[in-house]
Amino acid sequence: MKILITGSGGMIGRKLVERLVADKSLDGKPIESLTLVDVVPSPVPEGAPKATKPIVADFSEKGVAATLIQERPDVIFHLAAIVSGDAEANFEKGYRINFNGSWSLLEAIRQEGERAPYKPRFVFASTLAVFGPPFPDSISDSFAPTPSTSYGTQKAMTELLLADYSRKGYLDGVGVRLPTICIRPGKPNKAASSFFSGILREPLAGQEAPLPVGDDVRHWFASPRAAVGFFITAATIDTSSLGPRRSMTMPGVSATVGEQIEALRKAAGDDAVALIKRVEDPFVANIVKGWAGRYDAHLAGSLGFKAEKNFDEIIKVYQEEEM
Amino acid sequence: MKILITGSGGMIGRKLVERLVADKSLDGKPIESLTLVDVVPSPVPEGAPKATKPIVADFSEKGVAATLIQERPDVIFHLAAIVSGDAEANFEKGYRINFNGSWSLLEAIRQEGERAPYKPRFVFASTLAVFGPPFPDSISDSFAPTPSTSYGTQKAMTELLLADYSRKGYLDGVGVRLPTICIRPGKPNKAASSFFSGILREPLAGQEAPLPVGDDVRHWFASPRAAVGFFITAATIDTSSLGPRRSMTMPGVSATVGEQIEALRKAAGDDAVALIKRVEDPFVANIVKGWAGRYDAHLAGSLGFKAEKNFDEIIKVYQEEEM
Repeated sequence: MKILITGSGGMIGRKLVERLVADKSLDGKPIESLTLVDVVPSPVPEGAPKATKPIVADFSEKGVAATLIQERPDVIFHLAAIVSGDAEANFEKGYRINFNGSWSLLEAIRQEGERAPYKPRFVFASTLAVFGPPFPDSISDSFAPTPSTSYGTQKAMTELLLADYSRKGYLDGVGVRLPTICIRPGKPNKAASSFFSGILREPLAGQEAPLPVGDDVRHWFASPRAAVGFFITAATIDTSSLGPRRSMTMPGVSATVGEQIEALRKAAGDDAVALIKRVEDPFVANIVKGWAGRYDAHLAGSLGFKAEKNFDEIIKVYQEEEM
Repeated sequence: MKILITGSGGMIGRKLVERLVADKSLDGKPIESLTLVDVVPSPVPEGAPKATKPIVADFSEKGVAATLIQERPDVIFHLAAIVSGDAEANFEKGYRINFNGSWSLLEAIRQEGERAPYKPRFVFASTLAVFGPPFPDSISDSFAPTPSTSYGTQKAMTELLLADYSRKGYLDGVGVRLPTICIRPGKPNKAASSFFSGILREPLAGQEAPLPVGDDVRHWFASPRAAVGFFITAATIDTSSLGPRRSMTMPGVSATVGEQIEALRKAAGDDAVALIKRVEDPFVANIVKGWAGRYDAHLAGSLGFKAEKNFDEIIKVYQEEEM
């Protein structure tokens, strides 16, 4: 089993690599090699197969995708992307990397398959940002993607390609629409969603954290460990029943900020909660208003994708993995 | 008012040009010039503005889009595409023309706008083939496009671009998802949908026509005249309320084959109906099974898009325009 991972230097990418190295196999088959591609160096965990190759490259550059695919990996995890804010500020760059880059991988696979039969599993990291308001109460996989960002547009376009290339038999694609990942380890960043992790991570470390929105803001969450699990599941499910619907919303925990705070209280007490400082930020509040809080992920659930059941579990994952 | 039309040599394109020439104005503004682009020569109707230019060119070829957009048309009707069967048989060609070609027009507009402010109305001919089964009873604009053809995929991807370019303010896009156009003038063609027109057109001319499916097959129709009306409406509506939903299903007549036949009987009598020869064709029947029969077009209706009310009217349009 040969595996290619793009975006292997990112937070989720690194955790996925660690999991694969620990598992030693995928879908019951021993992992012979891991090719780890990112624009930053990808750490190689101890115990990785000898044939593990970290490559610093931009897969959206001409020829890179074909070179990567020439080795005919059995499974491709395509996680690489520039983030929402970057894609919004840099229109051409966003399309070049998030859309054309993804397409170049799909095309490289199709063309490799023209030389000799080849049909790898292609797991694509998509996003709930394919959806945009106005939202129904609960958003199902049948709800039309009308993204409100270029990032969401690029991901939605790639989902369409993934479905068409799968339908034509060029590859076997599964698109995984990730919930907001929480608790992200590390430092706060400039993402509007940063506070969802910050109001837990910082108090758990005895530090203050700003809360820019009200307690009633509801959102859809899963832990980094659950995200890794989604990718593993996507690589191993039977896709024969999927039909044209190759991309799915992943299960998650629907929780309000207030519920996050109560979970923190249970895990770390009133003193921790007291470290959350309410600092209203209309700019952030306005962005967050454009996000939905509840999704119907029963298709993914029925296929075996699993997230945490509540925020207590999400905090526990963080304590186990990062503290 | 300068107008650019791609696909101006096709059946609908020609009728749109005739309508614009007859109207002499669009949205109350006199039409100064028409640029008519197609890979086949576009007929120029009598009475067309002096500055009308028929151009034989493939807009998907490098540089063509930029050249067309340099003239800064106020309204662009983008009708050009290769049809479903061609796109399905020729994967690369379909993406090159239907998707990359459309994108090159949008990009040319964005880049022209970087030189000096420019924000034309861009009317895009989309299709109900963006949708794929399993279908609900009635398909609304909120239903997720999961196309079952490459053609539908290419149109759905262009719809996403159209929405994003509109959101960013680069252009003012409206996507028009056309019903099956009926009665198409001319001869039967190899499209699986050809019989929907054939079972009316041929008997109206005293000729036999094969019917490959059962009477209970339901479909969504509008006349060529209604289609032209959709494009005119799309060029003139106030788009400020559209938000991210720039592409809409057009109103139509939901009718079964049996209802088509009864309308023919009313228009031309039992002798005409007797010319319909039932010749079962499982291949066609199977394709048609993947199409839906009923759409919720209330958004388009509320914006002023209008189709016929029943099949009697659709037949009458054909008799007035073609017989």
